[in-house]
This record gives sequence, C-alpha cells and structure tokens, in this order.
Amino acid sequence: MEYAYSKNLKGNFKSIETNIVQSLSEVGFGILTEINIKDAFKAKLNLSYKHYKILGACNPTLAHEALGYEQEIGILMPCNILIIDNEDGTIKIIFPKAEGVLQTTQNDKIHTLSKKVDKLLKTAFDNIC
Amino acid sequence: MEYAYSKNLKGNFKSIETNIVQSLSEVGFGILTEINIKDAFKAKLNLSYKHYKILGACNPTLAHEALGYEQEIGILMPCNILIIDNEDGTIKIIFPKAEGVLQTTQNDKIHTLSKKVDKLLKTAFDNIC
Repeated sequence: MEYAYSKNLKGNFKSIETNIVQSLSEVGFGILTEINIKDAFKAKLNLSYKHYKILGACNPTLAHEALGYEQEIGILMPCNILIIDNEDGTIKIIFPKAEGVLQTTQNDKIHTLSKKVDKLLKTAFDNIC
Repeated sequence: MEYAYSKNLKGNFKSIETNIVQSLSEVGFGILTEINIKDAFKAKLNLSYKHYKILGACNPTLAHEALGYEQEIGILMPCNILIIDNEDGTIKIIFPKAEGVLQTTQNDKIHTLSKKVDKLLKTAFDNIC
C-alpha cells in the first residue's frame, strides 16, 4: 500500500512551509517536531544536501484516542510532512497516507481511525497551493 | 508483522532515558526529536496522562543511504523509542522494529537496510538494563 502522496509547488521554501503549518492547523494538527535534514547531514556527515525538512504534525485528540487503543502506536507518531527543494525552482510537499503507515498494526480501531486522519490530512494537502 | 518490542525496567524515568540515549549513541544513533506526550496532552487537551516520551533517534549515515533509495522515506523517520511510566514502579521501553515499520515500502534496498537498522537497535536495546 502507498504510504505517501505529493505535489510540486512554485514558490519559496519558507512561504510554502508557512502555508503547510497554517493549513494543518485548520484541520486541528499542530507541529510537534521539526527536522532539518540539510543541516543534520552537514553537521553530522559534512555533506551538502538539498533543503529537506520533516515536520511532525499531530492532532492531540486523535493521538489520545489512538494511544487508548494501542500504547505502542507512538512508534508511528507524529504524522510526518516532508518539504523538499527540488532545486529546479519547485518545492515538493509529501504527505503521509496514515492508512499505509499504520497498516503494520493489527488493530481494527487504529485502521478506522487512520481513515479519519487521512481525510483531515487530505483536506489540508488540497488547501496548499 | 510486529513493529515494536519492549521490556519493563525498574528505576526512575530520567535515569532510564539517559541510559537509552547513551546506548543508542554507542550504535551511532543520535536523538533528533523529543515529544513529551504527558505535557502535550496537558497543554492541548487539559488531560492528565502518564509520563510518556517519544525520542526520535537517527543514524545519519543510514538515513542518508535510505533517502538515496527512496526520497519519501522521511515519512517513516526517525526511529521512535518510547519511554512509558507504567505507574507501578516500573518503566516500559519500547523500540521500533524497522522491518515492520518499513514493510509498507516496496523497495528491496530499504528492506535490506531495515535489517541493518534492526541489528543496531536490538544491540542498544539489549544493553539497557
């Protein structure tokens, strides 16, 4: 099963990141973590890498519900959103397909919940342009 | 497929967290993110929740290799380690089984890499007591 979907956008990295954060906020997702892959690879491996960020998004109400069903589901949290500079004047944004990410669990309640998560994330994704 | 394994330890939360960070460091994994679920649920939902932390661990060399195989694999990064207060005098630590977490991808190179990740994580896990 697919675990992600994406689109390419014109615009600068920072303003697209701001749009993503705003759009996620409108469906109840806040950003809990942020990983700057470019900076991490420079610091740890002394490698030059394209601008690539991972935003860890979380809807607290749905996260609380999920943890009630399966304590170890934190292994698969938060929902990561990727922002990648294609270095051709466009920026790729990649959203997770929760149903794909969470297929590894055998818990039907988590599967049902993942459909709810995907509906919200898809709304946020569609609103980013 | 299972996506996690765990054990219960005696000791206090903070010292076990320190042991985990040290043990991961010895197999080349640093901590990139940290989510305090208890604090997040208190702040966002005004709920009292047990002490539950998610540490996002990453081995930069292996992460770089994985991103070379599949750009969207960042959706499933970093490797989350869970520390949960059982509230009975013991602390549960839960490690990810990368082979389970990454089974959603169809990429054989990622599957091979996940076995390498699991070997390192299992060594770190076994060294925590």
